[in-house]
Amino acid sequence: MAKKIKVGVLGATGMVGQRFIQLLEGHPWFEVSEVAASERSAGKNYIDALEGRWKQAAPVPKRIAGMTVKECKPGLDCSLVFGALDSSIAGPIEQDFAKADYAVSSNSKNHRMEADVPLLIPEINPGHIALIDAQKKNRGWKGFIVTNPNCTLMGPTMVMKALDDAFGVEKAFIVSMQAISGAGYPGVASWDIVDNVIPFISGEEEKVETEPLKILGKLRGNSVEFAPIKISASCNRVAVRDGHTCSVSVQLRKKASVEEAIKAMENFSGEPQKLKLPTAPERVIVVRGEQDRPQPIMDRDTGRGMSAVVGRVRECKLLDIKFSVLSHNTIRGAAGCAILNAELLKAKGYI
Amino acid sequence: MAKKIKVGVLGATGMVGQRFIQLLEGHPWFEVSEVAASERSAGKNYIDALEGRWKQAAPVPKRIAGMTVKECKPGLDCSLVFGALDSSIAGPIEQDFAKADYAVSSNSKNHRMEADVPLLIPEINPGHIALIDAQKKNRGWKGFIVTNPNCTLMGPTMVMKALDDAFGVEKAFIVSMQAISGAGYPGVASWDIVDNVIPFISGEEEKVETEPLKILGKLRGNSVEFAPIKISASCNRVAVRDGHTCSVSVQLRKKASVEEAIKAMENFSGEPQKLKLPTAPERVIVVRGEQDRPQPIMDRDTGRGMSAVVGRVRECKLLDIKFSVLSHNTIRGAAGCAILNAELLKAKGYI
Amino acid sequence: MAKKIKVGVLGATGMVGQRFIQLLEGHPWFEVSEVAASERSAGKNYIDALEGRWKQAAPVPKRIAGMTVKECKPGLDCSLVFGALDSSIAGPIEQDFAKADYAVSSNSKNHRMEADVPLLIPEINPGHIALIDAQKKNRGWKGFIVTNPNCTLMGPTMVMKALDDAFGVEKAFIVSMQAISGAGYPGVASWDIVDNVIPFISGEEEKVETEPLKILGKLRGNSVEFAPIKISASCNRVAVRDGHTCSVSVQLRKKASVEEAIKAMENFSGEPQKLKLPTAPERVIVVRGEQDRPQPIMDRDTGRGMSAVVGRVRECKLLDIKFSVLSHNTIRGAAGCAILNAELLKAKGYI
Amino acid sequence: MAKKIKVGVLGATGMVGQRFIQLLEGHPWFEVSEVAASERSAGKNYIDALEGRWKQAAPVPKRIAGMTVKECKPGLDCSLVFGALDSSIAGPIEQDFAKADYAVSSNSKNHRMEADVPLLIPEINPGHIALIDAQKKNRGWKGFIVTNPNCTLMGPTMVMKALDDAFGVEKAFIVSMQAISGAGYPGVASWDIVDNVIPFISGEEEKVETEPLKILGKLRGNSVEFAPIKISASCNRVAVRDGHTCSVSVQLRKKASVEEAIKAMENFSGEPQKLKLPTAPERVIVVRGEQDRPQPIMDRDTGRGMSAVVGRVRECKLLDIKFSVLSHNTIRGAAGCAILNAELLKAKGYI
Repeated sequence: MAKKIKVGVLGATGMVGQRFIQLLEGHPWFEVSEVAASERSAGKNYIDALEGRWKQAAPVPKRIAGMTVKECKPGLDCSLVFGALDSSIAGPIEQDFAKADYAVSSNSKNHRMEADVPLLIPEINPGHIALIDAQKKNRGWKGFIVTNPNCTLMGPTMVMKALDDAFGVEKAFIVSMQAISGAGYPGVASWDIVDNVIPFISGEEEKVETEPLKILGKLRGNSVEFAPIKISASCNRVAVRDGHTCSVSVQLRKKASVEEAIKAMENFSGEPQKLKLPTAPERVIVVRGEQDRPQPIMDRDTGRGMSAVVGRVRECKLLDIKFSVLSHNTIRGAAGCAILNAELLKAKGYI
Repeated sequence: MAKKIKVGVLGATGMVGQRFIQLLEGHPWFEVSEVAASERSAGKNYIDALEGRWKQAAPVPKRIAGMTVKECKPGLDCSLVFGALDSSIAGPIEQDFAKADYAVSSNSKNHRMEADVPLLIPEINPGHIALIDAQKKNRGWKGFIVTNPNCTLMGPTMVMKALDDAFGVEKAFIVSMQAISGAGYPGVASWDIVDNVIPFISGEEEKVETEPLKILGKLRGNSVEFAPIKISASCNRVAVRDGHTCSVSVQLRKKASVEEAIKAMENFSGEPQKLKLPTAPERVIVVRGEQDRPQPIMDRDTGRGMSAVVGRVRECKLLDIKFSVLSHNTIRGAAGCAILNAELLKAKGYI
Repeated sequence: MAKKIKVGVLGATGMVGQRFIQLLEGHPWFEVSEVAASERSAGKNYIDALEGRWKQAAPVPKRIAGMTVKECKPGLDCSLVFGALDSSIAGPIEQDFAKADYAVSSNSKNHRMEADVPLLIPEINPGHIALIDAQKKNRGWKGFIVTNPNCTLMGPTMVMKALDDAFGVEKAFIVSMQAISGAGYPGVASWDIVDNVIPFISGEEEKVETEPLKILGKLRGNSVEFAPIKISASCNRVAVRDGHTCSVSVQLRKKASVEEAIKAMENFSGEPQKLKLPTAPERVIVVRGEQDRPQPIMDRDTGRGMSAVVGRVRECKLLDIKFSVLSHNTIRGAAGCAILNAELLKAKGYI
Repeated sequence: MAKKIKVGVLGATGMVGQRFIQLLEGHPWFEVSEVAASERSAGKNYIDALEGRWKQAAPVPKRIAGMTVKECKPGLDCSLVFGALDSSIAGPIEQDFAKADYAVSSNSKNHRMEADVPLLIPEINPGHIALIDAQKKNRGWKGFIVTNPNCTLMGPTMVMKALDDAFGVEKAFIVSMQAISGAGYPGVASWDIVDNVIPFISGEEEKVETEPLKILGKLRGNSVEFAPIKISASCNRVAVRDGHTCSVSVQLRKKASVEEAIKAMENFSGEPQKLKLPTAPERVIVVRGEQDRPQPIMDRDTGRGMSAVVGRVRECKLLDIKFSVLSHNTIRGAAGCAILNAELLKAKGYI
């Protein structure tokens, strides 16, 4: 077998960074050769830099535990870096890596909405990777940045894509009930969420209302024409560990029955499935027939956390079709999508 | 002071029945003289009939603890009964009491949508009590039944009324995150809700989509003309003890700014406030200015559990105004509203 | 490969019954050929008999979903049955199967303390299976019953065995914090456990104080001489899905340092490990060095839910050594142990 | 009525500081005249200094909201300060106030175990306030410091006192299940406690094993002779908002029946009850007869959060008597006890 591609993880000690470490363990194409984090962590062994904050049920992979943590600066021994940095610092760091000929697959929000940066969900808009050429040219970079979207819109947007292909989507209402892992660690204080709902997540609704328009948009030359869809989002935090649930209603351009909508969802498949990318779920959207699904506890690990799980597809009194959709926020909605993006880049010859 | 009116509680051992007992303790107008429950409980002391299932933090009132539980049949020593029975049996029992000259203030769903039965929220449609005359005439009853609505729509409907009076309401999207107490006791299994969201509550969405139309409707002679509002509801259960939170968007007939909408909510007041009914909250709708309210833990007991608490009033990308609203589901949304209904009946001379 | 042994599951639709189904899927020696449950379920497909109450994250195995549920009566096409029945009915049913030449591996409490019935934890007292001969003789049965103990004592007893072998155990204090799955489904009402602790579990303390004495006892001819250990148990329910945590203190006959105690735990291994039984964990007791482990979320699935995980081994101000121990209550503490018992029976030629 | 005593709260913006503000609102003897906090907060209005982190259900008292926050330095306009500072800074600050003629009633651990500092639970050791005279003399201070103990030992120690008076207590096992509010705010991360138990709280067991020995000790001249009791504690964190539950076993010097033990607990009363101090609960220890109490949800507010609630008093297989005890950790176990201490000081003429 061919040699694996060396990859680094930026922000490797945080919640999403840990997910990268965990999901990349045993990856058939990629091998973690570098872990990087804050200056405070640099120089320590990864296990020590964690300071007891490894928050995954599976233990720290042995090979990684003993690695020396580096600073988040070019010079890492790898050609691809996964970005799991806090948005307060991610922007310039990711740029530095791109300038220095690294491929950057980032989970941070900083560059998502820039015109020449692909905002990718490989099942939806794989063609947007063509922006990379414009990006390199525009910026004079040797490397490049691709991004994956906000975790909350992941499930709704995959379903909207399936419906958009089949019937056209005009409008969508999205109300989220989001897991605590979405806020990182330590993130949400237990005092704020035990026996409670918090009806606000800073900056979240703006992302859910705008990022899908780029993702579902059409590539026109060197830029993306945003999709003509209007979205209204309300975001809530609930006492769930992993898995964002959304109550969604959509208005279609061409009317469709509930059965037709379900069929469009179940039949939806994309480039990652065609290319059999290692992290791609067999089924992008799983539609459950039970009246009380999806549920985080039961469904969040569907497709190893990479499928969107839909239930309660029914008519809406105001728009056309409504449903509940769940997706795993730190796998499909973060590290898993960034890895799938990198797999697409590899399959398409970008790395 | 005048002698208190004797009241009975039907279904006194259940979750809502216990709330009635608790809220009626020390009531200035009403005095619990009878507690009634299933055949199995009849003949026992109330405290024994509870079989250890008193689920309120405050202890069983001493006077009530020793009362003998009766069967749910006319013959009770009282003129008013509060109905907290399961809907599987409430229908005929409440009718029997109404026939036998009792005033029935029911929290059960059975008679809510019948044309000559008032479905009351005293701040919204106090005039609907006039249906009582038609009801007695139609049915040849000496007594009568009034009902309060489903707990989930309570907050949204109070706000819709305020907005409807000021600007007219055309459409509403309502997504609920409902407390476990709404399912009674034992109700929701802990296995189903710890670390979970359940995106389904049987029969709930239908109630939320239709009952407000009657409540907000206009009395025309002997019946109610339903309000011309379209509502779409999606109901979810979350791991909260008390207090239903809803994410709501509304379309107005006359455009209004966020400030105007807030003003309409804050200024909203009704008959119970004018009449200073004992259970009426001073402020029907409390609008919080913080960006992360309302929250069940912080806000559910506002106005002794009788106020609707609103926050995050803002523009909606699809309709006009959106906001979060919380109300206490077993107080304002059940026993408290039924008691307020009875207070209105008393103030208006019906009992 | 040899043909698999056909097994039946009694009480297959309940919480522990579902665990049996799940754990037996793909088992190398056993194959579920029969699922049996209450009269009400009999005759239905397993999936229908579940009535939407499948409570495992993994879906119902396809082969099992379509099986016809039988009544819990001899006549099943299998030679071994696993018992997951409620103790209110398990006693005579299990006897009927044993009389009718079935091997019964039961998780129910009914026969555990009978003198000629093995109460087995295969790592601790595999020799007690010799009681089977006495049992068959005493009762004139062709088949027999073996049992596994209560879920709560599982972790503490495995650790006590390791310490008893090395130093002798005289006394033990055990305070449990037990998961909700231990009460079955629907089991603990969410109203009783969200934001709460319940300091009582019916009958539990008696089991934790007495069953270990039999398990740790010595086989003397046809009966077990109970171990001369005094145990005091206090059992609490907490808002955890799976995994019972116990704070334990033990008094040793021969003094031991903390390091020696840890070494005894880590080195402990038993017959299932020697025989490489399919369900046996590689390590019976895993000792964690972090100061804040074991934790249900992080540790309950250690050894596929079959290991006891220990942490905070330290000196006790009153007895000698204290520690925390966690084990998965529906795997190691129920279905998993019963399967391991059956594997031991097979390895020893009893089935 | 006499003028109220002006009091200040040090660390007024934190979790316990907020409890002080809340409990002192409307206090008959004390009036908050100063709120002090970190340098960062100093100069701001209290409401602004909170930065949205008011974490009590009742709103910020209006009078306090507008007060200017001061630094934690002498010069405050008051004669008594309540200490709610983090232990990393509380030590020297409290000393500065004591030197400067303030009475300091502190909830911090720093000075608790110093020989001339009273560690007070007014129902138990009111006489220990005599140490104040030695303290002032030893240290040449005009003012003085009194302290209240760690929150976890509060319930068990009040019960031990009742039993010690009646029968003598020799040994105690204490296993705690502690609320998240005990860790302050933000304190315990939700990711660490939803669906989890943490079997470790830094420094807690040492406090629970030693502080009661001083509290239950005898004043001999200018120092306290520690009580000859051996305590072993194991401390756990659970997903409960407020209220620490402990499973406790005690060995008595003189044997007592369960009934006698209950009688001793129920009859226990102290100086605060005799003096009718405003914050004193009517009953120090409330013994519940139900088999499944105390429970945080049901019992933590007993005696306005100042009573210890006991249940399941029964024989212990190892020691003599075992029971469960609950007390409210931020009221009885923190701010409430510090206020009660101050009331005792006032009643005894120390302020």
